[in-house]
Amino acid sequence: MFKIALFGAGRIGQIHAANVANHSDSELYSIVDPFGDNAEIMAKKYGAKIQTAHEAFADEEVDAIVIASATDTHADLIERGAKAGKAVFCEKPIHLDIECVRNCLKVVDDHKVPLLVAFNRRYDPQFKKVRDMFASGAIGKAETLVITSRDPSPPPASYVKVSGGMFRDMMIHDLDMARYIIGEDPISIYAQGSCLVDPEIGEAGDIDTGFVVMKFASGAIAAITNSRRSGYGYDQRLELHGEKGLLKADNILEDAVQLWSEPGCVGAKPEHFFLQRYAAAYKAEWDHFTQVMAGKVPAMSTGDDGLKALYLADKAGESLKLGKEVML
Amino acid sequence: MFKIALFGAGRIGQIHAANVANHSDSELYSIVDPFGDNAEIMAKKYGAKIQTAHEAFADEEVDAIVIASATDTHADLIERGAKAGKAVFCEKPIHLDIECVRNCLKVVDDHKVPLLVAFNRRYDPQFKKVRDMFASGAIGKAETLVITSRDPSPPPASYVKVSGGMFRDMMIHDLDMARYIIGEDPISIYAQGSCLVDPEIGEAGDIDTGFVVMKFASGAIAAITNSRRSGYGYDQRLELHGEKGLLKADNILEDAVQLWSEPGCVGAKPEHFFLQRYAAAYKAEWDHFTQVMAGKVPAMSTGDDGLKALYLADKAGESLKLGKEVML
Amino acid sequence: MFKIALFGAGRIGQIHAANVANHSDSELYSIVDPFGDNAEIMAKKYGAKIQTAHEAFADEEVDAIVIASATDTHADLIERGAKAGKAVFCEKPIHLDIECVRNCLKVVDDHKVPLLVAFNRRYDPQFKKVRDMFASGAIGKAETLVITSRDPSPPPASYVKVSGGMFRDMMIHDLDMARYIIGEDPISIYAQGSCLVDPEIGEAGDIDTGFVVMKFASGAIAAITNSRRSGYGYDQRLELHGEKGLLKADNILEDAVQLWSEPGCVGAKPEHFFLQRYAAAYKAEWDHFTQVMAGKVPAMSTGDDGLKALYLADKAGESLKLGKEVML
Amino acid sequence: MFKIALFGAGRIGQIHAANVANHSDSELYSIVDPFGDNAEIMAKKYGAKIQTAHEAFADEEVDAIVIASATDTHADLIERGAKAGKAVFCEKPIHLDIECVRNCLKVVDDHKVPLLVAFNRRYDPQFKKVRDMFASGAIGKAETLVITSRDPSPPPASYVKVSGGMFRDMMIHDLDMARYIIGEDPISIYAQGSCLVDPEIGEAGDIDTGFVVMKFASGAIAAITNSRRSGYGYDQRLELHGEKGLLKADNILEDAVQLWSEPGCVGAKPEHFFLQRYAAAYKAEWDHFTQVMAGKVPAMSTGDDGLKALYLADKAGESLKLGKEVML
Repeated sequence: MFKIALFGAGRIGQIHAANVANHSDSELYSIVDPFGDNAEIMAKKYGAKIQTAHEAFADEEVDAIVIASATDTHADLIERGAKAGKAVFCEKPIHLDIECVRNCLKVVDDHKVPLLVAFNRRYDPQFKKVRDMFASGAIGKAETLVITSRDPSPPPASYVKVSGGMFRDMMIHDLDMARYIIGEDPISIYAQGSCLVDPEIGEAGDIDTGFVVMKFASGAIAAITNSRRSGYGYDQRLELHGEKGLLKADNILEDAVQLWSEPGCVGAKPEHFFLQRYAAAYKAEWDHFTQVMAGKVPAMSTGDDGLKALYLADKAGESLKLGKEVML
Repeated sequence: MFKIALFGAGRIGQIHAANVANHSDSELYSIVDPFGDNAEIMAKKYGAKIQTAHEAFADEEVDAIVIASATDTHADLIERGAKAGKAVFCEKPIHLDIECVRNCLKVVDDHKVPLLVAFNRRYDPQFKKVRDMFASGAIGKAETLVITSRDPSPPPASYVKVSGGMFRDMMIHDLDMARYIIGEDPISIYAQGSCLVDPEIGEAGDIDTGFVVMKFASGAIAAITNSRRSGYGYDQRLELHGEKGLLKADNILEDAVQLWSEPGCVGAKPEHFFLQRYAAAYKAEWDHFTQVMAGKVPAMSTGDDGLKALYLADKAGESLKLGKEVML
Repeated sequence: MFKIALFGAGRIGQIHAANVANHSDSELYSIVDPFGDNAEIMAKKYGAKIQTAHEAFADEEVDAIVIASATDTHADLIERGAKAGKAVFCEKPIHLDIECVRNCLKVVDDHKVPLLVAFNRRYDPQFKKVRDMFASGAIGKAETLVITSRDPSPPPASYVKVSGGMFRDMMIHDLDMARYIIGEDPISIYAQGSCLVDPEIGEAGDIDTGFVVMKFASGAIAAITNSRRSGYGYDQRLELHGEKGLLKADNILEDAVQLWSEPGCVGAKPEHFFLQRYAAAYKAEWDHFTQVMAGKVPAMSTGDDGLKALYLADKAGESLKLGKEVML
Repeated sequence: MFKIALFGAGRIGQIHAANVANHSDSELYSIVDPFGDNAEIMAKKYGAKIQTAHEAFADEEVDAIVIASATDTHADLIERGAKAGKAVFCEKPIHLDIECVRNCLKVVDDHKVPLLVAFNRRYDPQFKKVRDMFASGAIGKAETLVITSRDPSPPPASYVKVSGGMFRDMMIHDLDMARYIIGEDPISIYAQGSCLVDPEIGEAGDIDTGFVVMKFASGAIAAITNSRRSGYGYDQRLELHGEKGLLKADNILEDAVQLWSEPGCVGAKPEHFFLQRYAAAYKAEWDHFTQVMAGKVPAMSTGDDGLKALYLADKAGESLKLGKEVML
């Protein structure tokens, strides 16, 4: 039974807390959160301790830490966790600055602790099935990949300002997904974008509507389309076309009820947002980490994956500025 | 090139006229219709003659007749066609009275002319595919068949009064379809019905909403649900369940456009009514009849099929009156 | 926080245990199961006591009991729970004999404890949405209801022998669903059936393939089709047709991945069986019961509902024997 | 009744011949084809004359010409038709060289004859519905458009060599579609491509797998993905995302039959290729041209549209060579 210290008792922390507590091989041992209320409620619900960061790192009972705190604390907590010999599960991103990421990963390397960077979508049963079917040869060699990813509605401009921009904040998931599905690193990237959803996002120097095209050494090509607002829920789809056909992961709908009447046939919208859409992915992600802690498998999403996705996001930004494709 | 005399230049006659004229092995030779206008227009369009019934039967050039005139003329025209040695293509039903049907078929038998009774749905590529896949063993032995058939809106009560009732006018298609798909004759039938759509239909002694359950000697069971009004176009579906799975023929939709937005995902309705829905079936039906005329194949829907469907419709009516299943 | 004693630590008991434990208003207080192993594991996992039935009924801490033990214990445990003043949540059926059910419900009535008979499908978000949309007038008055319910594969004949037969064991869910959706009691019932799946089922005097048609006072008609084996997972669908259109609850598929290639477009099968398909329903059912315990709402599936569904199952059996519709 | 001279009796000529002949306002008057056999058969079937090009242009009975001959004859025939005062319906492209197109259009302008360049997909009921719904405000302002277009299998390399390349031969349809749907001209274009399907295509200096991203002045962005081979028929889809939601035109499938069994739920593939998929579009296109001839409406796809699509194809080629986006 692995004992887990959770850093951050906010929205995503609550997801991880439930998965940690319900898993047969892990228990929620302690919660570290400087802003107390959520932590108190959570501690009560799961019979966990409240600790300071210092206490958690020093506590020999703690096997692993889950970092679900603010983005700017990630790298520091990873390093401290690694130094304390804890296995580390960290929400993406490690840091918005790529040099900081490199430094952090060096510390992890030096201390040889397992690190899982939580690209939750890799654990989604849908996308995993596409990858597994592709790997098993269902469509032969990969030729083109199209990823569609739209949020239900834009975040406040205040958030956008500190987010690192659409490529690093939102598209980073899709950039990682492209690497995960195709199984290669791209050799070129081109980005195009517009601010169409919220003028304040444009005033903050960011875009809210973006396309990226990447080419891989095998000749395969991937395109990603992102929008900060869909108008119909959380749009999360991908299509991988290969020699022999197409693998397609459609949206998960809220339900399977239809109304057929005079205006047409009306069905449900996609699951509203990530907490609903990726509930199964978060569970599978945690299950995977318990096996990583047990030394049975390596992490399916590593620090290096985090680094490479951030690199692609940075290069997408560069391409957008230059108006040309950037070689990688 | 088979020369065809068409009886009846109304709605369904126009469908057959176009198929006759466009087929490489047939030409529309003449039109017989006592009510002139449509016939004139049609004759001009296809370069066909206007004839009286007498002229058409006496004309040695005429290879076959297509009967698309009023229901109460069918049996008489079939008999006259048979006596004149013409191949006969007749819209269903032969007659609403089963004794008249038997007498008529005797005449056809005596003169050994080919007769096709136009159960158009047997030629629908959808339903034919279900039957062919079933025949090829895709689902093993048949266990249950569910047929859904709803018209977009009820006919006028005046029509209902002379229609022979829902079982003989509307469900007869589905009763035939059940025999066609299962490939057996049923051994019992049970009917249930209500008048829910139009009170005038009830006052005319008929129902507008009906269910039938039939059992076959093999143990297979078929259920049919009919309504004179759907609220969303022409609903024409069936599901055949067997040992190894399900064959399902869904509606053909008006188009494949969807609108995803706040109220949900809206798609198109089914094709509105039989002229649209069964356009391909009418074409295939005519193509089949050209092969029947050529002596290459026997008719896929015969006088005997017409007789048996009418028999089932009559027995459904009997069951509804008695409130019990009727053995066949 | 309601303290719950769970009777029965088998497959369905485990489902309820998790829902009780994870709910914010309930805790799994004790487990009663004469066959120890599962109970021990469960007690450890949730920090619950092991009790005998006698101890649980006598324990003042226990607010409610959940009966998930063998069918033949249900009525007795309900009565003892009622006498002890506990709220009762009982898996269906109360008893296979309708007189025993009536006697049991009398005891419940006398002691005025809340009783929820767990017709889990009433709590399924799909079917509930159909009912709610219907209630809100989306399709006007109900005209026809078609329920399709097929298990993935037949139970062993040994189970079938003690199950009470297909109508009481399997179709009872659909009979209840018809009452729930239409919102009326039927006035007649007709059943047809065959033994096509497993000859041993036939030798045990039962059927494995069944149809039922029920008529309601409003003129609405419901048909149910059941099979003990689908060939493609758990088939759970319904369609309610009304004046203005159709409400349709389709299957929930295992995933939304498709493979388009030479042999066609292949998608996932329905969720395999009830534990997967109705996971959300079991959660919602428990949430509803916490509100019943709190006195906020009456049970949405009552002892009377259990009685009426059993009555319909018995009458279906009678109709099958007599070969005619039975008036209710 | 417009009298039509058809140039070219090959595959696409036969489509137009049938539509001309079946339309109530047009007749197939003559056929011009230097390679006789098809022309003879067609002439017999529709009662049309055989003419030389010279005869057709000189014949005062001829109201309009349909150009369905080899690509390198288009511009010349358009010019001769214009000079002879005939209305002109011409298969795309006018010419593979943009200067030749400009010169040709000048001649058409000088003689003020109606010219329809047959971008058949503009007349497809699916895509037209998307455009009409968008125009009516269903999704607000356009933000992103994704067009997927894949042929079932690659043409022989010999054809590819004289085709003008993938952008001018195949993607030109999609480039036109993007202008048609968005209703603006793009301001930049970026292309990426690979040769993955047939090495001979690469040796001929062409690609068989391509992506294009275009930006419009409004900020809207369009992406097109093309492949010379799908593995599952003719893939013709588009999705237009706007402020308020998504408009989606899916493939038209060969039928609506599904087989649900152990390996999954199998449905039909998309209509195999353009003759099937766009049958309705060709009919609607001809119907539109009869109204153009009658002076009721201007052509919905003009010489200028042909010019602009070719210009985009050329610029896509330029971008691919340069590895950067090209401003337009």
